[in-house]
Amino acid sequence: MSATEPPSYPIDDRNRMKRRHDRGFYDHATVHRLLDAAALCHVAYVIDGQPFCTPTLFWREGSRLYWHGSSASRMLRSLEAGTPACLTVTHFDALVLARCGFNHSADYRSVMAFGQARLLTDPAEKQRALVVMVDRLFPGRTAQLRPSTGQEIKATSVISMDIDRAAAKIRAKGVADDDEDYALPIYAERLPIRTVLGPAEPCPRLLPGVARPANLAGYQDGRPLEDALAEAHALAGLP
Amino acid sequence: MSATEPPSYPIDDRNRMKRRHDRGFYDHATVHRLLDAAALCHVAYVIDGQPFCTPTLFWREGSRLYWHGSSASRMLRSLEAGTPACLTVTHFDALVLARCGFNHSADYRSVMAFGQARLLTDPAEKQRALVVMVDRLFPGRTAQLRPSTGQEIKATSVISMDIDRAAAKIRAKGVADDDEDYALPIYAERLPIRTVLGPAEPCPRLLPGVARPANLAGYQDGRPLEDALAEAHALAGLP
Repeated sequence: MSATEPPSYPIDDRNRMKRRHDRGFYDHATVHRLLDAAALCHVAYVIDGQPFCTPTLFWREGSRLYWHGSSASRMLRSLEAGTPACLTVTHFDALVLARCGFNHSADYRSVMAFGQARLLTDPAEKQRALVVMVDRLFPGRTAQLRPSTGQEIKATSVISMDIDRAAAKIRAKGVADDDEDYALPIYAERLPIRTVLGPAEPCPRLLPGVARPANLAGYQDGRPLEDALAEAHALAGLP
Repeated sequence: MSATEPPSYPIDDRNRMKRRHDRGFYDHATVHRLLDAAALCHVAYVIDGQPFCTPTLFWREGSRLYWHGSSASRMLRSLEAGTPACLTVTHFDALVLARCGFNHSADYRSVMAFGQARLLTDPAEKQRALVVMVDRLFPGRTAQLRPSTGQEIKATSVISMDIDRAAAKIRAKGVADDDEDYALPIYAERLPIRTVLGPAEPCPRLLPGVARPANLAGYQDGRPLEDALAEAHALAGLP
């Protein structure tokens, strides 16, 4: 890497695009932007040769990913010693209807990140992670909450994974038919998909006078979820 | 299973809920309903001990799942002999802000389906699958398209997986705090997330007079994507 190139994840057989090379990105900026615009990921891991694909909430700090779960879960028990994992985030942007079956497609932006997943065992590190887990989504919120108990901290496990390979894949071109097919009288369209926030539903058991705090202002009815999440990640001041 | 019980997927160590038993469902009706309301899934599979988590479009017929990809892709080469896989669908319904960090959560509906993934090798079976791939989303559309060429069929691979274990997991309760915490002057809310269709974007190169066909009427601006997909699956007449 020269001094003028932006930082990128290294490439090997795990993350190299096997086809559609034009859709692949390995630079930190692209990979991190797509990760930070999401709260939900899917993690693949293996137990006794059986793959599992588990949805979970996650967050990023630098080139490290974190996710959490119950100390009783299947995944976590397999992670104590550290295990290879693949964490994937997908933004599903559109269905694409072309003039032939073959060119039907989807617009999407995804990241696959590879590394060794490990349980956080250091108590101070774990306690800090549980704060970031909330504050990454809602900056400043932990300070507004009832403090966690020792039992709660014990019942929650946090997994971390340093990204050692990653690839972002982006298709954003809508209808792309074969040249000669544009002459056919066949309808084609891009059908956009948007994931947006609905109106916040305050807990019906709020005490009188308890108002929505200002630090939730980014989560507004109708706003794209990814914009609110990316903004919150930036406000949380994470690297 | 007695004659009066609805059909369910069998349960073993792969799909049994290890915790939160109240969130688990194994009956065909629940599992299939959540699958048919989605077009995007994530598939976990293993190559040389390394797990991969790949986003892809998929569909269901009975207890069989299908997805597709290029014949050149990494996943497909590992699937020729048949390989264990886990296909997961997640509907992300809400972020949940509670009165303590531990009770922060998400409302979601997910399905994890397990089986042996296999390449379709029979040409007739594959050709039929490529029709269903399009018509499951847009009933009747293949008949409106330029027919696929032999080269296109060759360049597309279809994978099928008979579900031998599956579990649906549903959290749909919003804020659920510890009893004593409701007495605290802390704000809590459920923040709904909706995945909806945007306005269709007709291809700018449509020939004059080519109108949107009536079989796309279910895909309307503002409609929840899952409703359009579930309706299309039903209209396609798949088992």
